[in-house]
Amino acid sequence: MLESAEIGHRITKSVYAREEPKLREALLNSQFDLSQSGRGPVLILISGVEGGGRGETANKLTEWMDPRHIHVLAFGARTCDEAARPAPWRYWKALPPKGRLGVFMNAWYNEVMAEHLRGASGDVELHARLQSIRQHERMLSDEGLVLLKFWIHLSRAEQEKRLKALDRDPRTSWRVTRADWEAYRLYNRSHALWEHLLRETSTAEAPWYVVEGTDERYRNLTVGRILLKAMRSTLAPKPASPRRASTPPAPSVIDNVKLIRDLDLSQRLTADEYSAALEKYQGRLARLTRHKRFAKHSLVLVFEGVDAAGKGGAIRRVTGALDARQYVTVPIAAPSEEERAHPYLWRFWKHVPPKGGITIFDRSWYGRVLVERVEELSAVSDWLRAYVEINQFEEQLIGDGVVIVKFWLQISEKEQLKRFKARERTSFKRFKITPEDWRNRGKWRSYERAVSDMVDRTSTEISRWTLVEAEDKYFARIKVLKTIVDRLKDAL
Amino acid sequence: MLESAEIGHRITKSVYAREEPKLREALLNSQFDLSQSGRGPVLILISGVEGGGRGETANKLTEWMDPRHIHVLAFGARTCDEAARPAPWRYWKALPPKGRLGVFMNAWYNEVMAEHLRGASGDVELHARLQSIRQHERMLSDEGLVLLKFWIHLSRAEQEKRLKALDRDPRTSWRVTRADWEAYRLYNRSHALWEHLLRETSTAEAPWYVVEGTDERYRNLTVGRILLKAMRSTLAPKPASPRRASTPPAPSVIDNVKLIRDLDLSQRLTADEYSAALEKYQGRLARLTRHKRFAKHSLVLVFEGVDAAGKGGAIRRVTGALDARQYVTVPIAAPSEEERAHPYLWRFWKHVPPKGGITIFDRSWYGRVLVERVEELSAVSDWLRAYVEINQFEEQLIGDGVVIVKFWLQISEKEQLKRFKARERTSFKRFKITPEDWRNRGKWRSYERAVSDMVDRTSTEISRWTLVEAEDKYFARIKVLKTIVDRLKDAL
Repeated sequence: MLESAEIGHRITKSVYAREEPKLREALLNSQFDLSQSGRGPVLILISGVEGGGRGETANKLTEWMDPRHIHVLAFGARTCDEAARPAPWRYWKALPPKGRLGVFMNAWYNEVMAEHLRGASGDVELHARLQSIRQHERMLSDEGLVLLKFWIHLSRAEQEKRLKALDRDPRTSWRVTRADWEAYRLYNRSHALWEHLLRETSTAEAPWYVVEGTDERYRNLTVGRILLKAMRSTLAPKPASPRRASTPPAPSVIDNVKLIRDLDLSQRLTADEYSAALEKYQGRLARLTRHKRFAKHSLVLVFEGVDAAGKGGAIRRVTGALDARQYVTVPIAAPSEEERAHPYLWRFWKHVPPKGGITIFDRSWYGRVLVERVEELSAVSDWLRAYVEINQFEEQLIGDGVVIVKFWLQISEKEQLKRFKARERTSFKRFKITPEDWRNRGKWRSYERAVSDMVDRTSTEISRWTLVEAEDKYFARIKVLKTIVDRLKDAL
Repeated sequence: MLESAEIGHRITKSVYAREEPKLREALLNSQFDLSQSGRGPVLILISGVEGGGRGETANKLTEWMDPRHIHVLAFGARTCDEAARPAPWRYWKALPPKGRLGVFMNAWYNEVMAEHLRGASGDVELHARLQSIRQHERMLSDEGLVLLKFWIHLSRAEQEKRLKALDRDPRTSWRVTRADWEAYRLYNRSHALWEHLLRETSTAEAPWYVVEGTDERYRNLTVGRILLKAMRSTLAPKPASPRRASTPPAPSVIDNVKLIRDLDLSQRLTADEYSAALEKYQGRLARLTRHKRFAKHSLVLVFEGVDAAGKGGAIRRVTGALDARQYVTVPIAAPSEEERAHPYLWRFWKHVPPKGGITIFDRSWYGRVLVERVEELSAVSDWLRAYVEINQFEEQLIGDGVVIVKFWLQISEKEQLKRFKARERTSFKRFKITPEDWRNRGKWRSYERAVSDMVDRTSTEISRWTLVEAEDKYFARIKVLKTIVDRLKDAL
């Protein structure tokens, strides 16, 4: 879930100079309206890596807004008074009342992380703690509180750069403590924990917003905009019978499409390279899936991608290496009547392979956060909770020994057009192109956002997305095969 | 949570003969309407103790209803097909489609219980498993499925009686297996696990209904009525913007007021007995609260009760034994404006005592499921989720070493009238009686139901209610003191 916050988002000075005053005014207005409305409160949780600029973000928010109605609290070691009472007490005491904004620095997440890194809690305890946090946050949300959780992130290289820069400058060197360098040393070990934590505690009512901290302008504008959107939706007239007081803003308020746009689509293989690699990796895949240890596992492959990106071709290169009795390919289209009569994940659970088996999903349970989101076939609250449910679903599979490999195949708009036209010209491919495909093309931007959100929210430490540069079919097919082979090798 | 299912509910033959045909017709009609509506499905989970009549209950439901639209599935050991896939797979496969009813015998709860009793999972694992179940059930509910969970219960003595009776009769002895007797042997050990499981998985969207299994007629009518109510509310027209498709029927559909009505209010003490006991227990309480081990704990006392039941007097007999620097009494009235601007539990968290401290709540967080429920000051969905939140709140306190003792003081209607009139006659007590008190008297039955539900849902294995027969003030005060002393002794 951290990928898109490690790719170097920047906003130029001139854009910032134009956008900041507008944002500031809007924030001030919303803050005033909130204070008059008696709704909320809005509680902003800021957590993340050392040196990412958590404190600066909080300062910026108070600078932008009316300080009488926003209150920042940093939670460090517990005071005597706090240590004498159950852990949640200090957070309860500090809760802002309706109409107000509160900023909690670190709060309950940091305690859990510190304890785990210290080795004081095992994996099961960690899971139990995070589940309690989910319940706590759900209760706050049921009570009308709007919870915004920001994870201010830096890549390891960026963290080092920032700490060194702060250290060098005599005006800021005091801000770099031994604890900061200790945190840097633990970066790699911590990374898995962060991803775990973000996965387990990103819920429909209180999702995490991961914001890259490298560029101050980007960080401030992004946090400010999410906050603005949240305040506005808190202030919006409520439906007649609201089950829940608040719906958090859709994740895509962050510009994360960079993840997709920055893919290097120029990567290609020659026909000779392709033939050699194909033979090599198909051979390896064949041996791995016939390995006796594979009988204790099973394999689930998920293929998603832009229309005409070559999913079918890639799948055929995979199945070419498999024993036909061992695998099944499941194409996912619009749900049947029977499927619509069951909970969403039912149609996929049906096809979960037995031990030693392989299921290849040509499109998948990600439909809900892709086509169903873009085409508005699902309510916002439904596709928002789908991220959480999907992560749980995959966790249940992986916990039982299932190996899941997920591919997103990406091509450029230009290449897609070329392939569409080619399909129309080739009689035996003509069935593959429909008016709907042309219509989808018109929603290219919406799909880009949906895909980026999907990767952000469901590329977890236990189940990563592999983005495949598919402009060149040869390159794409080999990347797919090699990824499966690598993942199987790790698992067996 | 099992108390009210161990007190011998019975329904006479004649009442059953009158009620059963009516219920049956209503069930059939609702079942038909459900099948036409495309709503639901309704999934009935039946779990509970061996010999309680789980199978007979399922059979009765299918006998009453149209067997084409209700399907019973019993889950035992996993088949080969099931063992080759993740555990949830078989439950997913068996889900009924919209419009239908499904009955799952045992299902996911039995696996968890068996594993824990076998010693294969520790307390933390158990907690984690139960949390996953909660999430799973929440997802089903978000998808429109109505989940009804019945726990068919027997006291240990009743279980023995039933097993013996079945064993004696040659026509039924085949039904009593070694596993049944093994379960009986484990009854006491299992009891705590059952209570834990019921507490952790009774949620607002899928509460447990604990039904005493002793009397077949009572059991069948009770399960049938809850099912009827659930189907009717599933079929009711929906509000404009439903966040959740279903709200389960309020727990009070079960006649559990017997718990309150069966209290023996004739218990009394003479003045001499009272003086002696008062001195004895106040002395013990004084020593215990000054004990050095008490410094690692704290004490929370909760006093709830019928108006004029003598809460104040009982509290004064407690504080008489305490050091004034050590305790604080918190009277809870209607919330202030500041309190209304915060989540419900905020006003109580404020008063959580530090280590070595004592807080006495004169009325408490149970207001939400008592006065706020009866006076309709809270939405049904709010007081329903309050049970869950209260249990979590108390769990958080207890996990940190807080000792909680909760009292419900009960007097008869007649005695209350006498006390009200006496108050009106006594000038210095006149302030204690208001028109509201007289008005509350008119809601005696509603309060009885609310109290019984409260005890059912929040008398957990970690935090029991003590029901105090308060018709005689002497008896009540001594029972309160003795209970506190016993609980403190256990904790220190």
